Amino acid sequence: MRLSRYFLPVLKEAPADAQIVSHQLMLRAGMIRQEAAGIYAWLPLGLAVLRKVEQIVREEMNRAGAVELLMPTLQLADLWRESGRYDAYGPEMLRIVDRHERELLYGPTNEEMITEIFRSYVKSYKDLPTNLYHIQWKFRDERRPRFGVMRGREFFMKDAYSFDVDEPSARAAYNRMFVAYLNLFARMGLKAVPMRADTGPIGGDLSHEFIVLAETGESAVFCHKDLVEMPAPGTDLDWFGDLQPIVDGRTALYAATEEMHDEAAFDAIPEGDRLSARGIEVGHIFYFGEKYSKPMKAFVTGPDGVDKPVHMGSYGVGVSRLLGAIIEASHDDAGIIWPESVAPFDVVLINMRPGDEACDKACDEAYAALTKAGRSVLYDDTDDRAGAKFARADLIGVPRQLIVGPKSLAEGNVELKVRATGERTTAPIQSVIAELSQANA
Amino acid sequence: MRLSRYFLPVLKEAPADAQIVSHQLMLRAGMIRQEAAGIYAWLPLGLAVLRKVEQIVREEMNRAGAVELLMPTLQLADLWRESGRYDAYGPEMLRIVDRHERELLYGPTNEEMITEIFRSYVKSYKDLPTNLYHIQWKFRDERRPRFGVMRGREFFMKDAYSFDVDEPSARAAYNRMFVAYLNLFARMGLKAVPMRADTGPIGGDLSHEFIVLAETGESAVFCHKDLVEMPAPGTDLDWFGDLQPIVDGRTALYAATEEMHDEAAFDAIPEGDRLSARGIEVGHIFYFGEKYSKPMKAFVTGPDGVDKPVHMGSYGVGVSRLLGAIIEASHDDAGIIWPESVAPFDVVLINMRPGDEACDKACDEAYAALTKAGRSVLYDDTDDRAGAKFARADLIGVPRQLIVGPKSLAEGNVELKVRATGERTTAPIQSVIAELSQANA
Repeated sequence: MRLSRYFLPVLKEAPADAQIVSHQLMLRAGMIRQEAAGIYAWLPLGLAVLRKVEQIVREEMNRAGAVELLMPTLQLADLWRESGRYDAYGPEMLRIVDRHERELLYGPTNEEMITEIFRSYVKSYKDLPTNLYHIQWKFRDERRPRFGVMRGREFFMKDAYSFDVDEPSARAAYNRMFVAYLNLFARMGLKAVPMRADTGPIGGDLSHEFIVLAETGESAVFCHKDLVEMPAPGTDLDWFGDLQPIVDGRTALYAATEEMHDEAAFDAIPEGDRLSARGIEVGHIFYFGEKYSKPMKAFVTGPDGVDKPVHMGSYGVGVSRLLGAIIEASHDDAGIIWPESVAPFDVVLINMRPGDEACDKACDEAYAALTKAGRSVLYDDTDDRAGAKFARADLIGVPRQLIVGPKSLAEGNVELKVRATGERTTAPIQSVIAELSQANA
Repeated sequence: MRLSRYFLPVLKEAPADAQIVSHQLMLRAGMIRQEAAGIYAWLPLGLAVLRKVEQIVREEMNRAGAVELLMPTLQLADLWRESGRYDAYGPEMLRIVDRHERELLYGPTNEEMITEIFRSYVKSYKDLPTNLYHIQWKFRDERRPRFGVMRGREFFMKDAYSFDVDEPSARAAYNRMFVAYLNLFARMGLKAVPMRADTGPIGGDLSHEFIVLAETGESAVFCHKDLVEMPAPGTDLDWFGDLQPIVDGRTALYAATEEMHDEAAFDAIPEGDRLSARGIEVGHIFYFGEKYSKPMKAFVTGPDGVDKPVHMGSYGVGVSRLLGAIIEASHDDAGIIWPESVAPFDVVLINMRPGDEACDKACDEAYAALTKAGRSVLYDDTDDRAGAKFARADLIGVPRQLIVGPKSLAEGNVELKVRATGERTTAPIQSVIAELSQANA
């Protein structure tokens, strides 16, 4: 993508009401624009990262056997009356009346609708286990939206729903999501710790929040410090085998959110291993058994011929919020530092002197070669001053900067800067192109 | 994807209220489920096709120089007051009040919001031309939603917006979209004819609808019959060069929707070349100049240093509706016939006797080989009867069926059926796999 044809409105300063660094940087880097309180437009750079994050979530859901569908944003109020949540859900639910005076709502979550879909088609235990997910815009009418996409009102969420014939099988479904979450957050460069959590308006018996530690986190969390650096289990697993040992390996150590905190249990951890911190919730999983299937009559016939309510769980990932969490975890004074897996581009190609024949030619060749190798390249072909180009490249956080200037080029060289480390090397252009073509991006 | 792990709830019969064949087939093939009047959930098979169609639209927009962003579904009423459309837009606009009594609406289109984004960042003619698009859910509160996704209320639309310094440049932007549309519909196997159209609530001076001819179309259309079979211009073009000759090649022949129909001009066509038919609108493009930029003060400084309202156009494609249009154009008594470019899978692999060692082994090998070759395969590993498997494969319209049965397999053979023609060939399994691995899908 040539920058002269792109739409990247970077700002010198963030608006004063942006309190946390991720919000400031997303505004400054031209990733988002606020259209109403807690409602954002995703400008091209922001959308590019959002799609990367979404795709990682999708791949890990698919790998764990979940099947993607897509439910609409608007739902019938009557559906929520079946579960009893229409009246129970507070003012966070955006309630809507259409031209025919029918009551609708903008879905804040989809337990009711997926249960309705399931019960319409699935009748036998033979069709289980089933896990259906979607990645869709949701709305929660937060009283005080803030922190940019971290606590927005219209937000992008992945929510999966598992259906099983009994509790042990439902627990296996829960474990698959638990393990998939460990992997998907790790793929984004995040250290997310599963913590025992309150079930809130979703309800149920068992629940874990996946928490990224950050000073700007909204909630207090308590855990054994070894959990933070524990490596992800990896994807080479028998997903329908026994994942309990992996889950046990995490849950054996203490980790809880404030609502579930047990001071005595925490104090039993050796003092040097106790971690009391603040965290950002990036995922939340629930096992709630028959809470929705029973009132909504989602029954399946068991092997014994008896109809029983299906056992369910639900599994959320805050896709849009993850961008804020990643930036909170990965930035410096100059701007964002994207992990390669979610970077909007692999390389920024900076032409130091557009119009100079040699620079233009070298840039065109590098652009063509890298694109052919499957790298995504943002080619800064603008007339801006060198300082502005460097500052912008640092701000938007693309992992590698390939700098083509007339002086170096006269000797056949270009400069390569690694955004994360600031490391700069000067080398022959062909060897830099060859290196970048093989990058693990 | 193994069918036993997929979610494909096919129906023997469509509900009685599904009046047109595309609606019936989408319900029967387990592609969609109605959640409220004109509001659908996209089941996995439907979503797979929706994503294919979306991606073709995206690729052709990008090729024509448009840049993708993503605007939210909800918008502030005040924004629409700036253009005067908040009061002018009828009951099709879904109006919403949030917990703080602020007036919102579910966007039916985005002229106002994109103009707000544009004016916030772009100040000079030097940053033009610009074309920004998004692919997002929209809502129009149709009085009588019907025909499934063809006239839904919550629908998926691509809308692009061009910004130019003057009328000639805006016309060039219009032409780029005109030509891109010809290509993108052709890629989906559709014969879409651009026709002079009424500008409706968008407004403006110049407008074309892209119409697919179909008996079930909602509107009467009139054109020279040569337009229907005219080949697409293709993508190997100088997109920022002069595209007027391509546009002229279409607009020289008569084509108009009912609202713009000129009986005298139509009668001037030789009788044998006149086509009076019904059509489905799949795209609609507008040039409306300063209609929004003037009241909303989206000004750019021209080369002469004078600030002037930017010239705009907008360009819609009904992405969700396209699935209905494609099915209307491509089906038979047995079900859907997907063009390869939008098919949810490339191949259905039918195991005629799951549990038979040789059949399972051959299917596993075929599945692995085709997947490795980049083909997407739906592997029917269920215990259903052969007749049910064949009927389902025909219904869901995947282009090729690879049938593995014990008798043929004993001689090393499998059967290959082409969905569109019904043609069946028996051949050695390895040669069929090799052939399918090279299919243009």
